[in-house]
Amino acid sequence: MPLSTEDLAMIDTPAVLVDLDIAGRNIARFQHYADGHGLRVRPHIKTHKLPVIAEMQLAAGAVGITCQKVSEAEAMAAGSRAITDVLITYNIVGAAKLARLRTLAGKLTLSVVADSEAVAAGLSDAFRSERHPLRVLVECDTGANRCGVPTPEAAEILAATIDAAPGLSFGGLMTYPPAGGEAAVERFMAEAKARIEARGIAVPVVTSGGTPSMMTAAEAPTTSEYRPGTYVYNDRSLVSRGVCGWDDCALNVLATVVSVPSENRAIIDSGSKTLTSDLLGLTGYGHVLGRDDILIDQLSEEHGRLVSTGPIGLAVGDKVRIVPNHACVVTNMVDTVLLTGDGRTGAEPCSVVARGKIV
Amino acid sequence: MPLSTEDLAMIDTPAVLVDLDIAGRNIARFQHYADGHGLRVRPHIKTHKLPVIAEMQLAAGAVGITCQKVSEAEAMAAGSRAITDVLITYNIVGAAKLARLRTLAGKLTLSVVADSEAVAAGLSDAFRSERHPLRVLVECDTGANRCGVPTPEAAEILAATIDAAPGLSFGGLMTYPPAGGEAAVERFMAEAKARIEARGIAVPVVTSGGTPSMMTAAEAPTTSEYRPGTYVYNDRSLVSRGVCGWDDCALNVLATVVSVPSENRAIIDSGSKTLTSDLLGLTGYGHVLGRDDILIDQLSEEHGRLVSTGPIGLAVGDKVRIVPNHACVVTNMVDTVLLTGDGRTGAEPCSVVARGKIV
Repeated sequence: MPLSTEDLAMIDTPAVLVDLDIAGRNIARFQHYADGHGLRVRPHIKTHKLPVIAEMQLAAGAVGITCQKVSEAEAMAAGSRAITDVLITYNIVGAAKLARLRTLAGKLTLSVVADSEAVAAGLSDAFRSERHPLRVLVECDTGANRCGVPTPEAAEILAATIDAAPGLSFGGLMTYPPAGGEAAVERFMAEAKARIEARGIAVPVVTSGGTPSMMTAAEAPTTSEYRPGTYVYNDRSLVSRGVCGWDDCALNVLATVVSVPSENRAIIDSGSKTLTSDLLGLTGYGHVLGRDDILIDQLSEEHGRLVSTGPIGLAVGDKVRIVPNHACVVTNMVDTVLLTGDGRTGAEPCSVVARGKIV
Repeated sequence: MPLSTEDLAMIDTPAVLVDLDIAGRNIARFQHYADGHGLRVRPHIKTHKLPVIAEMQLAAGAVGITCQKVSEAEAMAAGSRAITDVLITYNIVGAAKLARLRTLAGKLTLSVVADSEAVAAGLSDAFRSERHPLRVLVECDTGANRCGVPTPEAAEILAATIDAAPGLSFGGLMTYPPAGGEAAVERFMAEAKARIEARGIAVPVVTSGGTPSMMTAAEAPTTSEYRPGTYVYNDRSLVSRGVCGWDDCALNVLATVVSVPSENRAIIDSGSKTLTSDLLGLTGYGHVLGRDDILIDQLSEEHGRLVSTGPIGLAVGDKVRIVPNHACVVTNMVDTVLLTGDGRTGAEPCSVVARGKIV
């Protein structure tokens, strides 16, 4: 049941609201697509950072979760017994992190990635005396120009290195694809997989990700697993790409008007400390629901400036709901979100246990 | 004593390092200027969010601190007995915040601002039954086009309203000035002050702020108090404006190279979750100390991409120190900073108690 105006009036602001009914629909939509195309789903928890939503994703059919940092995986695993299989899609470097990774591997089915011999050597040193080997996937750069080995040949060589390394087992291939890059993903992954298999090494998983192209993920048929993150909440960037509508956005920022200094300008109590400065190529810092005439044209840390093409028609104390440009980064700003829906009659505070987990 | 390479090697990353010796010099420099020009100093704690640094500012001569939100003021006051005088430069709106403000006013010398009759009426309703009136300053828009009454006449009228309102006392005039706006500040404040005094109402304080123009604050002689924030740490935006040098930057982000995918590109384990997406008009997301050839050209949440004009000369595991574009927002990303200097032999973890205080 959506919150009433009276419910909203009771909420101190700024506040981050998460509608679990919408999130549930978003989860079901992609799971249905994936099931229909033989794709396993391993959602990236960066968007919600909440065990309760990971549990919804697992209950819908996800095979496990994806985290980006060791500390995120620790927090998520501590928050739910249902979380038993975690892929950390990150090069784990340094003694402190490797020690934590070892501890975590004793509790979970754990996989990580590597894109260089240096990273693989560090993992091997850390796990060579362990009873069970650590699964390591090779991260592949299929065009996003971030991390990843640059060619299928390089993927083959690193896979063989991992396969032979004490303490490690080769877990497959991983990529974060460029926008609209299914063809590039398929070309790279098909060749890399064939090369590795030609060496007699199995490729258990080929995992790709990214919400923008998730509904065409099957166009890269070598992909066996997909890791969408933002899909669970959606946001203004995805609406602007035509991926979803405003009604599919599960995360809103609730803000209060604190000043109306001129006829077409209002200031809200939400700035970059909740909405963040992420633009993702857009103009303005979020969409005020129901007010297509308003642009959030400027943020400081605690102020958001709303300007309208006409009279803004807002008064001090009015509340507005905002769909942020980028949902994941908003989650990371707050210690608590307010959950609604899924049978709740009001808004229920929920600690964002994997917030701020940077190491 | 600066950290050695061995010290840095021991620190898990990303980490936010704060050098208290540099911070102390920055504090002393502005306090000296202010003392020489008869300006009181009331630092804005948004930059550090740490009671220990507020204590350094107070010990140097600050008359109190500035906060932006009620919850920030609560956290700071709870963290240090030395914090007894707080100005919250924000329109406090809504029953929940007003109740907390009342509690806080019982413990501190507290002032807030208002820029409308609506805000003043809410404050008056909340404080009319209190034993002591709440000091309320009128926020003035001297050109920044954020909050604030638009004219000296409007300031006069609102000051009279506050002066007459049950539960309130008029505390003076406050502005956050536009860049290089001393003349505009002086013009507005001198006229507003004269108008209010002509009504027989005293103007106890005229307070302005902003690090970029702090060393010319005295060019607006009606200003009696100044509220710099970023000056304590400095950052890349202030270096780019010529306000300070790299050696004056007290806050650094320490990051580790996790991938070197090509000759002129490296990826570090610090992305927008530490450096933030704040550009402040700059190109790139921070300055790698000692490496003028490197641009941080792209951030995702957990990755920073470094590109060099030539061979980047970094290897997996190398550490780099980064001066962020905007120090204040980096402070807000982390639960803990590492303090160095001021007699410490190593890096000492310190909880950022006023982080994430958004209400």
